[in-house]
Amino acid sequence: MIEGRIYNFSAGPSILPEPVLLKIRDEMLNCEGSGMSVLEMSHRSKVYDNIINAAVQNVKDVLNVPDNYKVLFLHGGATGMFAALPMNLGVKTGSADYIVSGNFSGGAYKEAKKYLKDARLAGSSEADNFNHIPTQDELTLNPDADYVHCCWNNTIFGTKFGYIPETGNVPLVADMSSSIMSEPVDVSKYGIIYAGVQKNLAPAGVTLAIIREDLLGDVMPITPKIWNFKTEAEKNSMLNTPPCFPIYVVKLVTDYLKEQGGLEVMKKRNEEKAKILYDYLDSQDFFKTTVNPADRSLMNVTFRTESDELDKEFVAGQAARGFSNLKGHRLVGGMRASIYNAMPKEGVEALVEYMRDFAAAH
Amino acid sequence: MIEGRIYNFSAGPSILPEPVLLKIRDEMLNCEGSGMSVLEMSHRSKVYDNIINAAVQNVKDVLNVPDNYKVLFLHGGATGMFAALPMNLGVKTGSADYIVSGNFSGGAYKEAKKYLKDARLAGSSEADNFNHIPTQDELTLNPDADYVHCCWNNTIFGTKFGYIPETGNVPLVADMSSSIMSEPVDVSKYGIIYAGVQKNLAPAGVTLAIIREDLLGDVMPITPKIWNFKTEAEKNSMLNTPPCFPIYVVKLVTDYLKEQGGLEVMKKRNEEKAKILYDYLDSQDFFKTTVNPADRSLMNVTFRTESDELDKEFVAGQAARGFSNLKGHRLVGGMRASIYNAMPKEGVEALVEYMRDFAAAH
Repeated sequence: MIEGRIYNFSAGPSILPEPVLLKIRDEMLNCEGSGMSVLEMSHRSKVYDNIINAAVQNVKDVLNVPDNYKVLFLHGGATGMFAALPMNLGVKTGSADYIVSGNFSGGAYKEAKKYLKDARLAGSSEADNFNHIPTQDELTLNPDADYVHCCWNNTIFGTKFGYIPETGNVPLVADMSSSIMSEPVDVSKYGIIYAGVQKNLAPAGVTLAIIREDLLGDVMPITPKIWNFKTEAEKNSMLNTPPCFPIYVVKLVTDYLKEQGGLEVMKKRNEEKAKILYDYLDSQDFFKTTVNPADRSLMNVTFRTESDELDKEFVAGQAARGFSNLKGHRLVGGMRASIYNAMPKEGVEALVEYMRDFAAAH
Repeated sequence: MIEGRIYNFSAGPSILPEPVLLKIRDEMLNCEGSGMSVLEMSHRSKVYDNIINAAVQNVKDVLNVPDNYKVLFLHGGATGMFAALPMNLGVKTGSADYIVSGNFSGGAYKEAKKYLKDARLAGSSEADNFNHIPTQDELTLNPDADYVHCCWNNTIFGTKFGYIPETGNVPLVADMSSSIMSEPVDVSKYGIIYAGVQKNLAPAGVTLAIIREDLLGDVMPITPKIWNFKTEAEKNSMLNTPPCFPIYVVKLVTDYLKEQGGLEVMKKRNEEKAKILYDYLDSQDFFKTTVNPADRSLMNVTFRTESDELDKEFVAGQAARGFSNLKGHRLVGGMRASIYNAMPKEGVEALVEYMRDFAAAH
């Protein structure tokens, strides 16, 4: 870590690779010899066209995206997509199946009800306070659904899918906001993968969407112009002025991922980092984690002590250790360490050291 | 200008003040002593909360916003607002009056038709290729309209309103994307003022909206969650993760505007800069401008020679002079010089010198 910087365990927006921040800094007054900042650049300029095209190509390369998919950058974050998805996909039968495994998939389901004739709950782990992912056997999927929706990694609860739901001919749509680029994905198994970029890819402000081409077609008449996936695909995400800066950072971060060896390397590092934390959690009784072991997230590790008072004390002590954002989400309390790609192994080791010291002192 | 930088006449995204770019650069690795970049910061953190609150307060201060207005930061740009406005405001009679004075107001009108029972054309200068703003006498306004919409400054055609349309009790909604912060505005005359920030305020990716509180209320049931103005006002624009970085730049740019003496000072400078260009245009016959003199934009100055070939040659010669983005919009051809707040007077003088030299040589 560069001097003065801390281990930032924020769930989102989140830590970015320092080489990327340095590059942004160095280009801030003059980007690629253009005589201007990327912030000041026309999205119709040649320099910017190269940037967005490189971002698209990098995403394709790093995620090994098949040729029959389009990579789009859209407005409104994942929450915007919760509305845009039914508008774009819910036009054949007007029905879709939603797997609810946490807060955001619940939000997606609720938003879809505004637009679909029949937004159906395909399965939910809410009764167990979302401590696991519904299994395939627990799902009720309908072959006539226009799509099946799931949230791959649940940032708040610290769970992730350990299997890809079998949906037959129905397109599977996955919100991968908090797992994107953390490990390889078999894109061909999905109709759409989308992600708010602010966790593992770029600063907040753009939504990455990887869409199978046969899903680009007629939309509901009420679809706002900027959320018509087909038109955005035809316009290379430039139907209106796109959020140019976060797209530029997507380009830089994916450049970095390629330099590092790609997603197999990231997966190995992420598994190693998560193992340090989970192994410690499993080795003692002071800190508890309620997540079903098979469904543990690689990116967001949730834990707590036996009392809210001790949790508070643990969080209050983080700054002195050079950490931040270890407080759990307000919906669940306790603690959460988000350990995205850019979190170094040393940060996780330092956290476990703090946990050991804290446990020993209480 | 800092060495290596050029006079960037881009219509949007556009030139930003160098002191702001320097500040962004200097804080890129560590923002306000937080140990992290603003790009990496939780939007729920205290540091970021101070940033967004300061941005809101600065906008209120600089534009002298009355107390009964809310300042919001929304997703989707002005084009997103074209859909969000009828969804939020078109719920009483389902009708609205649209003044069409250029490409974007035309786009707003077209998008509104998707949602309103009766989107009406209140007046248009399309028959004259948008070379002027429809006058009050040319408008057909209905007292039962839910709102009247106009676009204050037409970036593509180089016109701006010289008067505030009298709409009685019907709220006036103005898209000020390309004039915001260029001069003082009597906010009390408007129901809503909104602006994509990428011209005079910040990098692309957020929409500033200043909304009179009585217009925050029931919305159409199909309104996406992220575009419910009332909820966004209650949540201080943080219903979901906001585009944190452009909001941070809004804060820095408005800090800068305050340091410079506010919008009266900017207006004086902008009038002085525009006068240099218009005076030259009026003094000769080589370059022509078709805009009605009373409706000339302070921000976007359009002109052309007698032929497309000469226009091309003029644009081709810009780089050698240290300029960029002088090409007119594809809809109108010719040339356009966008001279937002951050364009120094010296840039405009240098442009006129180039124009003189070019005219003399042909």
